[in-house]
Amino acid sequence: MTKIATIGCGLIGQGWATVFAQAGFDVAMYDASAEAAERALETMASRISDLVEFELVTAADAPRILQRITVAPSLEDALNDAVYIQESGPERLDVKREITQMLDAIAAPDVPIGSSTSGISASRYCKEIAGRHRCLVVHPINPPHLIPAVEIVPTPWTDPDIVSKVNALMIECRRETIVLSEEIDGFVVNRLQGALLEEAFKLVGSGIVSAADLDKAISDGLGLRWSFMGPMQTIHLNAPEGVAQYVERYGEMYRSFGVGPSDSVDWKDVANEKLGPEFEERIPTSDIPDAQAARDRKLMALLRHKAQTRSETPPVSPVTQE
Amino acid sequence: MTKIATIGCGLIGQGWATVFAQAGFDVAMYDASAEAAERALETMASRISDLVEFELVTAADAPRILQRITVAPSLEDALNDAVYIQESGPERLDVKREITQMLDAIAAPDVPIGSSTSGISASRYCKEIAGRHRCLVVHPINPPHLIPAVEIVPTPWTDPDIVSKVNALMIECRRETIVLSEEIDGFVVNRLQGALLEEAFKLVGSGIVSAADLDKAISDGLGLRWSFMGPMQTIHLNAPEGVAQYVERYGEMYRSFGVGPSDSVDWKDVANEKLGPEFEERIPTSDIPDAQAARDRKLMALLRHKAQTRSETPPVSPVTQE
Repeated sequence: MTKIATIGCGLIGQGWATVFAQAGFDVAMYDASAEAAERALETMASRISDLVEFELVTAADAPRILQRITVAPSLEDALNDAVYIQESGPERLDVKREITQMLDAIAAPDVPIGSSTSGISASRYCKEIAGRHRCLVVHPINPPHLIPAVEIVPTPWTDPDIVSKVNALMIECRRETIVLSEEIDGFVVNRLQGALLEEAFKLVGSGIVSAADLDKAISDGLGLRWSFMGPMQTIHLNAPEGVAQYVERYGEMYRSFGVGPSDSVDWKDVANEKLGPEFEERIPTSDIPDAQAARDRKLMALLRHKAQTRSETPPVSPVTQE
Repeated sequence: MTKIATIGCGLIGQGWATVFAQAGFDVAMYDASAEAAERALETMASRISDLVEFELVTAADAPRILQRITVAPSLEDALNDAVYIQESGPERLDVKREITQMLDAIAAPDVPIGSSTSGISASRYCKEIAGRHRCLVVHPINPPHLIPAVEIVPTPWTDPDIVSKVNALMIECRRETIVLSEEIDGFVVNRLQGALLEEAFKLVGSGIVSAADLDKAISDGLGLRWSFMGPMQTIHLNAPEGVAQYVERYGEMYRSFGVGPSDSVDWKDVANEKLGPEFEERIPTSDIPDAQAARDRKLMALLRHKAQTRSETPPVSPVTQE
């Protein structure tokens, strides 16, 4: 069995342990507080039975998954023989620096050290560390055992082989990886969320719409397609000749709303130089009609699913919980 | 039977006709091209059998729904006795003005005239029209028969009773209505989409991430929750004491990314003045733990659904279509 070490036993560390164990890895968890580590095992047992209820884990697999996860008595024990280290410590620069320094001193050479941080670029704490070539950010979306997306963010010193190795490992763990070419504050996920929220706060703040109605614009509008198709693919399918034509038709309209920042990017340049060539590989123009039909089938399947789950999983509340 | 008139028989007009007929209304369709109107009936028959396949319409209801939809021989016939008019003509200001003028001249007094336009505020074409108090935008998301969200946008002259009447009618048609207090370019849905796209174009354009990986940030990340919960409710549930605490914790972080435009709004003000009071009604702080549990159950049900539909609805392509 191949072993992974997860450092820090909070909710993120627990999520990671579940992900790795589901993929068949032995997981050694470590937390400076032995009590926290033991509590984590209990919480994870309850999480895994939820996964069984929703058929995301089979009843036969559940005990095996739990058996693969152990609490290591020391950091040395946790790291011994580990092929990968996932650090999910507190979100403080000084703590990240101290923990990573320690991990690098103990772990075998070239074992990647990924940090779950959502807000601290790894270059800020690993510059002075001997093994900085193996440090990078591997950022999950909360809760990690449910949301497949994972951001992989190298520092200027991260060895490209380390990035490839971590990417392959994450794919083996059925994660959907978003690989950044370089560090940027907020990475990709939170930048996209922040851009949408900024416009949402403006609209609600100005009294144009209530938060409840704005929420419907996503949960009963844009978010339906976005649950199985990203925003770039969505617009690629919204013009007969794909994304470049979409930008030609609607780029000016979006620009006229003034939703972007003042140093706004030229959508046409991006469409011509990056998106066009990339989609020519992913979904060539000739495949668009079939891809549209597949999209509408997924949309109908999602609507059926939403109609079913509306009755199956009512919001739990003291009144209806009987 | 109560009757609704849909003017313009393109894809949007067809979607509306299906929505109204599903809700039990008689629908009179009209198009300047009689041929287009007849073709529309055929397309709709095929759409409705898709809905039957996905259990969104019962097999028994399908013929009844189709029977309720007829093509009117003239505009006068279409409007006669209609309680509501949905205009889905071409997206050109001069055409909108001309059509609306005509509709207002023929239709009985106080019958609301809603336009499907996605980009033209109604005040731009109805100012000089006698019945401008009954004109407004009623904007669906494409395709209208699948996406429930509908934006209702009054002009400065729209009678509030007309807005209430149209809102009630849309709710009766099982639409999820987003009611704006006043006109704004792009309304709400496309402004939110535009803000997200602007950041997406920047990230892909700068080479930080591929469009394929950026798409995963939504389709395997943020978009999962957003398919059943809007962005405001999402952040409300991401802090133990709700949205005001979320903004306190993370507002500065988002601001530091610089994703918003330069005339950025103060998130704290909006949280304190608008969101806090609104959520105290929708999901009071004491209900947050239950709402979080319900969210995670919906998330697991969605993941199960996605796993199932991945095998059930493969992308249709010449290779796999055998």
